[in-house]
Amino acid sequence: MTYFKQIEKINYEGVTSENPFAFRHYNPEEVVFGKTMKEHLRFAVAYWHTMTQDGSDPFGAATNVRHVFGENEMELARNRVEMFFEILEKLGVEYFCFHDVDIAPEGNSLQEFMHNLDEITDLIQDKMKQTGIKLLWNTANLFTHPRFLNGAASTNHADVYAFSAAQIKKGLDISKKLGGQNYVFWGGREGYESLLNTDMEFEQANMARMYKMAIRYAKEIGHDVQFLIEPKPKEPTKHQYDFDAATTMAFLQKYGLENDFKLNLEANHATLAGHTFEHELNVARTYGALGSIDANQGDLLLGWDTDEFPTNIYDTTLTMYEILQNGGIAPGGINFDAKVRRTSFEMEDLLLAHIAGMDTYARGLKAAAKLTEDRFFDKIKEERYRSFKEGVGARILDDKEDFKTLTEYALAHDSIQNESSHIEYVKSRLNDYLV
Amino acid sequence: MTYFKQIEKINYEGVTSENPFAFRHYNPEEVVFGKTMKEHLRFAVAYWHTMTQDGSDPFGAATNVRHVFGENEMELARNRVEMFFEILEKLGVEYFCFHDVDIAPEGNSLQEFMHNLDEITDLIQDKMKQTGIKLLWNTANLFTHPRFLNGAASTNHADVYAFSAAQIKKGLDISKKLGGQNYVFWGGREGYESLLNTDMEFEQANMARMYKMAIRYAKEIGHDVQFLIEPKPKEPTKHQYDFDAATTMAFLQKYGLENDFKLNLEANHATLAGHTFEHELNVARTYGALGSIDANQGDLLLGWDTDEFPTNIYDTTLTMYEILQNGGIAPGGINFDAKVRRTSFEMEDLLLAHIAGMDTYARGLKAAAKLTEDRFFDKIKEERYRSFKEGVGARILDDKEDFKTLTEYALAHDSIQNESSHIEYVKSRLNDYLV
Amino acid sequence: MTYFKQIEKINYEGVTSENPFAFRHYNPEEVVFGKTMKEHLRFAVAYWHTMTQDGSDPFGAATNVRHVFGENEMELARNRVEMFFEILEKLGVEYFCFHDVDIAPEGNSLQEFMHNLDEITDLIQDKMKQTGIKLLWNTANLFTHPRFLNGAASTNHADVYAFSAAQIKKGLDISKKLGGQNYVFWGGREGYESLLNTDMEFEQANMARMYKMAIRYAKEIGHDVQFLIEPKPKEPTKHQYDFDAATTMAFLQKYGLENDFKLNLEANHATLAGHTFEHELNVARTYGALGSIDANQGDLLLGWDTDEFPTNIYDTTLTMYEILQNGGIAPGGINFDAKVRRTSFEMEDLLLAHIAGMDTYARGLKAAAKLTEDRFFDKIKEERYRSFKEGVGARILDDKEDFKTLTEYALAHDSIQNESSHIEYVKSRLNDYLV
Amino acid sequence: MTYFKQIEKINYEGVTSENPFAFRHYNPEEVVFGKTMKEHLRFAVAYWHTMTQDGSDPFGAATNVRHVFGENEMELARNRVEMFFEILEKLGVEYFCFHDVDIAPEGNSLQEFMHNLDEITDLIQDKMKQTGIKLLWNTANLFTHPRFLNGAASTNHADVYAFSAAQIKKGLDISKKLGGQNYVFWGGREGYESLLNTDMEFEQANMARMYKMAIRYAKEIGHDVQFLIEPKPKEPTKHQYDFDAATTMAFLQKYGLENDFKLNLEANHATLAGHTFEHELNVARTYGALGSIDANQGDLLLGWDTDEFPTNIYDTTLTMYEILQNGGIAPGGINFDAKVRRTSFEMEDLLLAHIAGMDTYARGLKAAAKLTEDRFFDKIKEERYRSFKEGVGARILDDKEDFKTLTEYALAHDSIQNESSHIEYVKSRLNDYLV
Repeated sequence: MTYFKQIEKINYEGVTSENPFAFRHYNPEEVVFGKTMKEHLRFAVAYWHTMTQDGSDPFGAATNVRHVFGENEMELARNRVEMFFEILEKLGVEYFCFHDVDIAPEGNSLQEFMHNLDEITDLIQDKMKQTGIKLLWNTANLFTHPRFLNGAASTNHADVYAFSAAQIKKGLDISKKLGGQNYVFWGGREGYESLLNTDMEFEQANMARMYKMAIRYAKEIGHDVQFLIEPKPKEPTKHQYDFDAATTMAFLQKYGLENDFKLNLEANHATLAGHTFEHELNVARTYGALGSIDANQGDLLLGWDTDEFPTNIYDTTLTMYEILQNGGIAPGGINFDAKVRRTSFEMEDLLLAHIAGMDTYARGLKAAAKLTEDRFFDKIKEERYRSFKEGVGARILDDKEDFKTLTEYALAHDSIQNESSHIEYVKSRLNDYLV
Repeated sequence: MTYFKQIEKINYEGVTSENPFAFRHYNPEEVVFGKTMKEHLRFAVAYWHTMTQDGSDPFGAATNVRHVFGENEMELARNRVEMFFEILEKLGVEYFCFHDVDIAPEGNSLQEFMHNLDEITDLIQDKMKQTGIKLLWNTANLFTHPRFLNGAASTNHADVYAFSAAQIKKGLDISKKLGGQNYVFWGGREGYESLLNTDMEFEQANMARMYKMAIRYAKEIGHDVQFLIEPKPKEPTKHQYDFDAATTMAFLQKYGLENDFKLNLEANHATLAGHTFEHELNVARTYGALGSIDANQGDLLLGWDTDEFPTNIYDTTLTMYEILQNGGIAPGGINFDAKVRRTSFEMEDLLLAHIAGMDTYARGLKAAAKLTEDRFFDKIKEERYRSFKEGVGARILDDKEDFKTLTEYALAHDSIQNESSHIEYVKSRLNDYLV
Repeated sequence: MTYFKQIEKINYEGVTSENPFAFRHYNPEEVVFGKTMKEHLRFAVAYWHTMTQDGSDPFGAATNVRHVFGENEMELARNRVEMFFEILEKLGVEYFCFHDVDIAPEGNSLQEFMHNLDEITDLIQDKMKQTGIKLLWNTANLFTHPRFLNGAASTNHADVYAFSAAQIKKGLDISKKLGGQNYVFWGGREGYESLLNTDMEFEQANMARMYKMAIRYAKEIGHDVQFLIEPKPKEPTKHQYDFDAATTMAFLQKYGLENDFKLNLEANHATLAGHTFEHELNVARTYGALGSIDANQGDLLLGWDTDEFPTNIYDTTLTMYEILQNGGIAPGGINFDAKVRRTSFEMEDLLLAHIAGMDTYARGLKAAAKLTEDRFFDKIKEERYRSFKEGVGARILDDKEDFKTLTEYALAHDSIQNESSHIEYVKSRLNDYLV
Repeated sequence: MTYFKQIEKINYEGVTSENPFAFRHYNPEEVVFGKTMKEHLRFAVAYWHTMTQDGSDPFGAATNVRHVFGENEMELARNRVEMFFEILEKLGVEYFCFHDVDIAPEGNSLQEFMHNLDEITDLIQDKMKQTGIKLLWNTANLFTHPRFLNGAASTNHADVYAFSAAQIKKGLDISKKLGGQNYVFWGGREGYESLLNTDMEFEQANMARMYKMAIRYAKEIGHDVQFLIEPKPKEPTKHQYDFDAATTMAFLQKYGLENDFKLNLEANHATLAGHTFEHELNVARTYGALGSIDANQGDLLLGWDTDEFPTNIYDTTLTMYEILQNGGIAPGGINFDAKVRRTSFEMEDLLLAHIAGMDTYARGLKAAAKLTEDRFFDKIKEERYRSFKEGVGARILDDKEDFKTLTEYALAHDSIQNESSHIEYVKSRLNDYLV
């Protein structure tokens, strides 16, 4: 069966095309800055937003029209796999991501859930073999079910903790089975609703304990996967523990986990935390922890996670610039953690929205490549920091100065002249690099 | 000379008093939860807001009427010391805090500035001896002068770095001279205006280098002072490196400084970073890093640092609760980093505003003591986390479980029943503890 | 059948009571400031949050345990009426509010929906007669169903407009049938998702047209009901037209509707718009448009509508102060547009949460009465504005001055001395009035 | 004397130019959408940010290097006029704006201030004649001086009210003298610090009274100037009365002033109020009140007025689109209410920053012209709203339907099918229009 009969594989047709079902910028085999666009961008489609998001919001019922059905939940789950891989192939996307509950029904017991997962992952495995499509990452959904209302790894209830461990174990088993390149933890309920009834230290110690069990288990089964934590400051929880990149790095270091984890950063989570996305990417780079990204965009005038498809070329340019600075994003990738708006409720919007996102990232890649090749920012920085290349600056970097020697130097050099940053000019020139 | 002739020493008169120049709640020698209020609260007055804040704002000229003058800057500086200690004594406050530039004019050279500092700190030392008043902390102002427009320890200009080192060295010399109990770093310009021209990693490495020099120097001069970093997310800088407590802990751990520093947390900085103040205090406690606090309050509907005197009893109650949980705040204290509003421009407002803040903290202490004595939150938490006291919960805490054993357990215990948090009831009952 | 068998009618027991199912402050027949608390507060319970809110959120499934069932939707709807009136009676609340879809299933056609509404409102009418409980207001839900995805009165689709008109007409018929004292419009989807595809002027003109039809129809059926608009800035829509009180007044005046509508103001909507609740109440008073309130509280660090039960006594004190200044809120009332947290999922939390809200409002009323009786704010204001009582100030108010005469006056009186507001002292003294 | 000797008049050199002192997009005489760029854009330079802004911020001293001096304040004021007109001419900008206090020292009395204003405006008048440069608008600064700490037209002090009237009268006299095309009111202190001591209704009535005096006076002196109010939500005041466009329209209508005023909208003020700039422009258009704009940009992650030079081409495109929809902005214009960053402290940054802003607006104009010519948005809207062109939709617009007829219609047409907005595709295609 074909879910998008009327739509062919999406091809690159260039900016002059008026065909909405064509790429205007993303040309997968085009070489940019030494690699094909496909190699740079490592796009992934998210199972949840693509297959199970229904267009509902806190004040509205589902709107999305999805022509995928089943006599029962398992048949629906199997048909969704078909439709999902059709989308991946039509888009020419080579990676995908999922939560356990996205792909298989939970059934009436943990046993049944595991059985359902086995059956659906068999099907997915077949599809992967047929198509060459790969698993970027999977994760366990430890936030939707009512049992997780007080958290999973940070729960107050030991049975919930055990249940969470079982789901993560199964997630790692699936990851190994499907050759997953990364495994993600997003702590949607790992945080608190009120400090009045919360022991933050206790809960975080338990989270670290869970992560350590995960590391041990992955070793035990011989699965060399990259573990990722995805920070988010709030929503659904009032205050989540993995607030942002730096907070997560503090936690990882405290518990000796900094060498076992990298970060999966999301644009909309960055802005909810009060940062630009490029800030979060830069912080992660600084800690050697830039693992993968969830590509989307938020609305800076709205206080919740809108998970919009990225269409802003400033954002994708600066994102791709950070990724190029990082020497690429592999084994991570660019996963569209984005959902069509409630008013884009047709099946075809799934394709149109991904095309919009992929084109916007392709523009970003091309602009970032130009910036990197021209060394636009590099030259500005070299000029700005040049005083550390010689003299007292160089000695400071060599740790050859101390407070006494620097005081002597300062007493003799206390008439300091800074230079203008001409930042308005710099920002204005950035526009010339946009594609 | 007496600056507040008409106003006597502020005494405790209780809530029935209609005298504005009296404490209604702060009764310094009253014993609460095993210590006098004075011992618990360790109040400090800030030199900057009290002596040199003039009531100006970005759209308005100075309004504050201050009857302290001088023929020249040094005479003014000396007279300010008089007035400052009169305020401390009138209020019965035993600690104070200052930046170098608050107390002495910078003059025309670094040499002259150091000389001025020596002269004024001699005077302050005398005053301290006469009054028994102590230095809670001092710091170097490395943000006001134009030379710091691109940062101090994170500057792009090596000469500025040297100058900063000289100021910090002098700050530590003064700290030793005056018996300072803490030494604070607030990085108002340590951050960036734009990532386009900033090398964040380079700048942060230089900050760590500066801190290490400070530690070495304090050891060298035999001054066993508690070093503190004061986080703030933004303002004046677009993005400051010490964004919040967790970010600062990430940085300290990265550079191996976590045992040498604690945090000086400010209420208004917490809310600017998207956190409650009690969250920041709790985070610091979790890292063993709650050093001292800057007591003030912000306006959650305004996006800048309003530095208001604290008058909200919810906030002071939860702050004092965290401090009691911490076993007290010493050698830190409660420093009023708060300024009178531009419309409270009279001399006497300096006293009235501190009385308001001290009374509000006294209320908070009394409420927190009741909460602690009743074990109100403790009992809620014990009940909530009780599943970790025995069985699988206890084994998890003892690290006796792994993913396999927990999966077995979960398969046998997958019908989990949570309990209601009754959080509306809990919050409503908190009101009964307010004083 | 009885839904809360184990819980008696909630009585006032005072602050010393340890019974969670008792009022500690709300004493309905107690006279405060000349009227009973019941008369002042005019509490209403909201059908939606109480009967149909399930505890789900954008990342989580329903958690609420509700022991109300039915063989089919209509039986469930009938049983909900029983349970709802039991709650009203147990709480001693005399008013209630509902959307059409809260009380009856929509069925498969508009005809069926109307029929269902007739049947259920018959039942409600009986209950009202038996109990003396009254309808504060009802409204049509024109935002949940997918047909409203682009708005109702501001839709782009004429058929949706017609459908909305039919629902509002039915709402007014029901209002007349049940003796509703107010009728509310909340425009959850009246706004835009993107300006790129929106004609704001066209849409707002259509909204005004709809309101005018409503006014005409109410007159036609001889129903003298108070029409109310409830402002909200955003969520679910990116930008709602009735952003806040002032925006709504601008719209009403533009279309000549200002004498036909008052405002139903909600605390959490105020803060989402960047205002305190007391600001919105004050604005409404200024326009003679304070109609009714939706009592709840938001979290100022979160950017969405949390609809928490009110527990903050500062907020309820200042709210009740505005209401007393307004001479009361009738024919409006205090409707708890508040939902139990997802973790307060037991049936009994519905009672506990309302008790918390009612007690907090009772505290607020008592504090506001003290403030009003003492004339605490009045005296401050009289003193502040006294220069307008005589001389040039009085002449200005009498419109006896113009630019020329005032310039002459100013040239002769250009040395102006303001007085301190002592605002820190004022805020601190407010604490003494809290109950 | 020449202040920018080394820099020639700024010319258009196109995007291939590497000369920082050239326009890359702004080509004044180039015809776009039927008019020259110069005619469309009506740029103005602001006296305050250009001549008197010193680079200070709440935590930092002045940094700006300005080679304009004087033996005394009046000589400095005269020299500033020279420098200002040199900048205008070098940039080829034909309009300017100022506050009274920007151009002349206030001296020691109101009399002296008026005298100084006369002298400087004589000089400005000469310069205007020589150069053909025109006054877009002037205004009275009623917020900087301490006398205005509680407001000007909304002050609590009648003498301050009189003083304000005198300043506005003088402002109108100057406006007439210099042929000003608009006169602006920005109420930086018209609002409140705390509702506890404020009578909002009294204060707003006094503001309306002041505006009426201004209207009468302008008529009296035969000066047909466009009056403008500039909304801002907050800063410096906690809550300003002219919060945003809609709030201001509510006020104007309440006091019958809506035909005498239009709005001067500022980008950064829009975002501080929680709106996009295009929203505010659209609202103003809806009320027939789009008067003039203050061109700048804010930082959506910062909560204060950063007044940055505009460099974001999305913003300028959507701004110019609204202006084209409005049929142009005359007699208003595009005033750069923008200041160089504290780190752009050189004289030449004044030119570089304006070039950046003018080029970004030129890009915006070209993109908006393409959008308008292609009817990109128009076609989307026509398609979306087409159901109102005939049948029931047309009858609704003709006011031929009522609740009864619409109910009949709805009962017969209750199976409504909406159409997808394809909003992701629409947003993505907008990128193709950017220049």
